Amino acid sequence: MQPAAAKFDTSSLLLALSRYTSAVSDMEKTILLPSLLRDVPSDDVWDCEATQTFRDLHGSYLMLKAIRNTVESSPVPLDDHNINTALNKTLEPLLDTDPEVLFHFHLRGLFSVMSDLTKKTQSLTKKYKDIIGVAN
Amino acid sequence: MQPAAAKFDTSSLLLALSRYTSAVSDMEKTILLPSLLRDVPSDDVWDCEATQTFRDLHGSYLMLKAIRNTVESSPVPLDDHNINTALNKTLEPLLDTDPEVLFHFHLRGLFSVMSDLTKKTQSLTKKYKDIIGVAN
Repeated sequence: MQPAAAKFDTSSLLLALSRYTSAVSDMEKTILLPSLLRDVPSDDVWDCEATQTFRDLHGSYLMLKAIRNTVESSPVPLDDHNINTALNKTLEPLLDTDPEVLFHFHLRGLFSVMSDLTKKTQSLTKKYKDIIGVAN
Repeated sequence: MQPAAAKFDTSSLLLALSRYTSAVSDMEKTILLPSLLRDVPSDDVWDCEATQTFRDLHGSYLMLKAIRNTVESSPVPLDDHNINTALNKTLEPLLDTDPEVLFHFHLRGLFSVMSDLTKKTQSLTKKYKDIIGVAN
């Protein structure tokens, strides 16, 4: 079996994952005092409406780091409790779907969400610089 | 930026992708006369019902190879026409979902579909051996 590294270094999905972990790494290097992000409201609609709880920038910071850890090294949890009820209902019709369609659906979905999370990480890093008064 | 290879070689998703491409490679080495698979019906329900067209084992063989090519080197198509209408409707409620939930949803989904496709590839290789009368 050829090592995974040799086979996937040109994959766009892998590049999207790599770009994300680099953005989180930059965020960690920049944000030396994460506690300054506490109680600072997020501009993102989904931070308030989708989660139905208030998530401050500190919460976003922790979430972005946790996802990076999952991307880099965690096993994929097949009984993931992070899937909410609405998505569980969404999953039901997918179970009978042609695996080719399902493959493209999840590949595209994962690529897209990694791009969004990369932008969000860069935006959070910029907001921290604004808070401490460092020019971007 | 650290090379992607160094960061993701322990990722379970990457291992699932690697296992799949290895299974397709074995299939290609074994199936020297793919035309023998023509008009041989597939046992998989989704090959007939989900796609609403008859897909013989030769069709499955081509599909499994095409997915391997996408996994290994193709860019992720963001305007993918392989997403059917039912899945487009499924996508709509996902757009407002917390990206953390969406990330876990697609990570789990891609991991799961790669595992299914790996089993399917191994099963197709075994069926070819049955057809040509080689013991498994």
